[in-house]
Amino acid sequence: MRLTVDNINPNVRRAEYAVRGELAVKSEEFRARLAKGDAGLPFHQVISANIGNPQQLDQKPITFFRQVCSLLENPELLKNEHVLINHLGYQTDVIERAKRLLKHVGSIGAYSASSGVPAIKESIAAFLEKRDGFPADPAHIYLSAGASAGVNTLLNVICAGKSTGILIPIPQYPLYTATLSLLNATCVPYNLDESKAWGTDLDTIKKSYEKGRADGLDIRCIVIINPGNPTGASLAEEDVRAVIDFASQENLVVMADEVYQTNVFVGKFHSFKGVLRKMQKEKPGQYDAVELVSLHSISKGMVGECGHRGGYFELVGFNPEVEANIYKFVSIMLCAPVVGQCLVELMVNPPKPGEPSYELYSKEYSGIHEGLRERATALHRAFAQMEGVECAEPQGAMYLFPTIRLPQKAIEAAAAEGRSADELYCMRLLEATGICVIPGSGFGQADGTLHFRTTFLAPGTEWVGSIVKFHKEFMDKYR
Amino acid sequence: MRLTVDNINPNVRRAEYAVRGELAVKSEEFRARLAKGDAGLPFHQVISANIGNPQQLDQKPITFFRQVCSLLENPELLKNEHVLINHLGYQTDVIERAKRLLKHVGSIGAYSASSGVPAIKESIAAFLEKRDGFPADPAHIYLSAGASAGVNTLLNVICAGKSTGILIPIPQYPLYTATLSLLNATCVPYNLDESKAWGTDLDTIKKSYEKGRADGLDIRCIVIINPGNPTGASLAEEDVRAVIDFASQENLVVMADEVYQTNVFVGKFHSFKGVLRKMQKEKPGQYDAVELVSLHSISKGMVGECGHRGGYFELVGFNPEVEANIYKFVSIMLCAPVVGQCLVELMVNPPKPGEPSYELYSKEYSGIHEGLRERATALHRAFAQMEGVECAEPQGAMYLFPTIRLPQKAIEAAAAEGRSADELYCMRLLEATGICVIPGSGFGQADGTLHFRTTFLAPGTEWVGSIVKFHKEFMDKYR
Repeated sequence: MRLTVDNINPNVRRAEYAVRGELAVKSEEFRARLAKGDAGLPFHQVISANIGNPQQLDQKPITFFRQVCSLLENPELLKNEHVLINHLGYQTDVIERAKRLLKHVGSIGAYSASSGVPAIKESIAAFLEKRDGFPADPAHIYLSAGASAGVNTLLNVICAGKSTGILIPIPQYPLYTATLSLLNATCVPYNLDESKAWGTDLDTIKKSYEKGRADGLDIRCIVIINPGNPTGASLAEEDVRAVIDFASQENLVVMADEVYQTNVFVGKFHSFKGVLRKMQKEKPGQYDAVELVSLHSISKGMVGECGHRGGYFELVGFNPEVEANIYKFVSIMLCAPVVGQCLVELMVNPPKPGEPSYELYSKEYSGIHEGLRERATALHRAFAQMEGVECAEPQGAMYLFPTIRLPQKAIEAAAAEGRSADELYCMRLLEATGICVIPGSGFGQADGTLHFRTTFLAPGTEWVGSIVKFHKEFMDKYR
Repeated sequence: MRLTVDNINPNVRRAEYAVRGELAVKSEEFRARLAKGDAGLPFHQVISANIGNPQQLDQKPITFFRQVCSLLENPELLKNEHVLINHLGYQTDVIERAKRLLKHVGSIGAYSASSGVPAIKESIAAFLEKRDGFPADPAHIYLSAGASAGVNTLLNVICAGKSTGILIPIPQYPLYTATLSLLNATCVPYNLDESKAWGTDLDTIKKSYEKGRADGLDIRCIVIINPGNPTGASLAEEDVRAVIDFASQENLVVMADEVYQTNVFVGKFHSFKGVLRKMQKEKPGQYDAVELVSLHSISKGMVGECGHRGGYFELVGFNPEVEANIYKFVSIMLCAPVVGQCLVELMVNPPKPGEPSYELYSKEYSGIHEGLRERATALHRAFAQMEGVECAEPQGAMYLFPTIRLPQKAIEAAAAEGRSADELYCMRLLEATGICVIPGSGFGQADGTLHFRTTFLAPGTEWVGSIVKFHKEFMDKYR
């Protein structure tokens, strides 16, 4: 029997991943048409606001990181240090870091140990210790090909079929529901509270949990994305505490997706690991059994090295035999990309004050941070002018997730096309302006509400104006 | 309920992956002890012959590839072309290639399109067309994080549960059985013919197929590893034809793992795609429905860039809706590492005669090829002297897979330790010499036979001598 869509893996067939779905595919077609000189489109560039991909837009890589990587790729350059220094502007700390990494890694063209280069795991542990004020053990740190690969690993090990329930925030990054579909496990959604800037609400979580239990599910894990994707929310310490306390009572694994930990504009990032250690210290014994995994990535933050596919996760409190299975799972895919691993090291151990590359690094880093904040604010201001659009103030991550209230006629027109109204809105926006955003239905949203997610990575204000103009025309058309 | 080995995903628990299992872990412990100056071991270095990881041992990266990559990592260097050329020995074609790739890729720190950078897919298509003499369509080419990620994608889509059977050669690279375990699909093993230098035997394949069908399985795919891993076998064209003809009759997807296509010492590599196209031309209509996927990688061959995690697969004859699901699956993991994608481009489109970098490239390439052949021959010669050891002549890939006949007392001693005899042998070899090889049981072997797999990547002859000496002592001990 030949393969058809009806006989392939039904778990794959069911999986949905809107971030790279129909809209993204169509936007790439438009891009290709423009590249070939097609003048028949009503716009002259495609703006990919569908995915947090900073270097596709305006963000420049951090010079120190890329200088080191160039030496890792071609260690022969290290035979000409004076040329690097005198003619190419490489600082001595670039050269020293490359040498140190090469000493530990060997060739970046060789597979590393399955869980990552030991010396890089030690650097990550030192970073975590400094960040949280509590020790971290390199033995429980695993390098991964971006945080996505880490999530995939962990859910593969945790999920034992349909009866396994995983608490997932709604809206969520669709990697989670897609992976649960692939594993034929069950998503137990809990709504974030839009009225409280998309924070977690413990009562809501408890209700979802109880409902899942009543449905016969074995609920094993709660996923938290903080700062939030797609919401941009940044959790207060008390919210983090509440989640840990609840997970401890119900023996849930806490999966803390903390890839946006440096993309915070309001308040301060509170790591789950740091808060857990504090709680363990405050009430000895009470939280010792908590199982926590925290994920991080080089794709986001001011690093933005998505294409290098680097990240890591740290396990806390996992049973050693379970951890052995996590190790086995990662070993089947051999190892995370080694340049990506080195970029993780550079991210967690950047130039320090007084070191030759510090000044430029610091300037670039804060320039990117400020740029993101300014763009977020400008976009937020534009949304404030738009009829029927409401948007929480930008707090973090790379996204805004406005509510849109659309006229009944638009909802009917969408239904006639077999689409949800937010899908119709995003499709028309793309066709009219070349701007690709993702409908809220791709992330999940409370019943009866409509949203879209846009990154605030694109430079300039022209595209923001295009959204405002499109929105007015769309509303007028369907009024 | 906390996670324990008894309640996690049983598919993960059951999966086995010997190449990175107990022996590999122990060898890394020895390596760490030696690095810390431990003098209590009976050897002074660990030789990782357990995995084809050329650059961990002696193989140097190809200069042209890495020079280009250094510029991709730090495009700022391109502002100083004269320094690159006059002081650092970069040829003009290195600079041109880097500029061309950057033009198509943008920043290598950005996610690419899910299936890979379009221009790189075009380069691969041009390579396939030249290799096979038949056109290739970039639309059906997918970049992947090494061939392993490609195999994972394809098996995820093809396998629909326990009743799906996949024909797997025995011995095999354990990625296949591990992935089938993870998907809870069924391995239908077919033995390769050791008496014919580990070739495929169609009668054996048919018998395995019929047995699987009789067991109620829906057999969907036949996996062929050519050149063979762990066997090193290189298939003749008639064997490739026989497999395609059989797959055509039974509507099986042909999954051709061709990652060792340039590691051939005897005869010539015959690609499944090229042979299929010939058969389609010879008998119009008869083979049009064949579904074929061919996988390739930058990790093997003379490239050896394992740590960069690059590869691709080409689909032929797949149903478009099935292909749409393959696309969706790869998009969930966003994209293959972009430097790895660029290395695929460099692999398939290396310097040509007359171009400035050609001479050095050609010298390095043939030096590596000859070196591998010499090492294979030396190792083969050593095995010929060893009591009870038989080994087919090296034909390709990076491995030898000798049969070992061990004394009854060794088999009993192994059983007493709860091990198979080949496991005991490999463990004792590691403890005595620091050489890590993998027992045949990790790959599968015909009942009543014992083997081990070793790479022939390690330089020098000292380690070969250590194996010979150990073998004699082991045989004497258990005689």
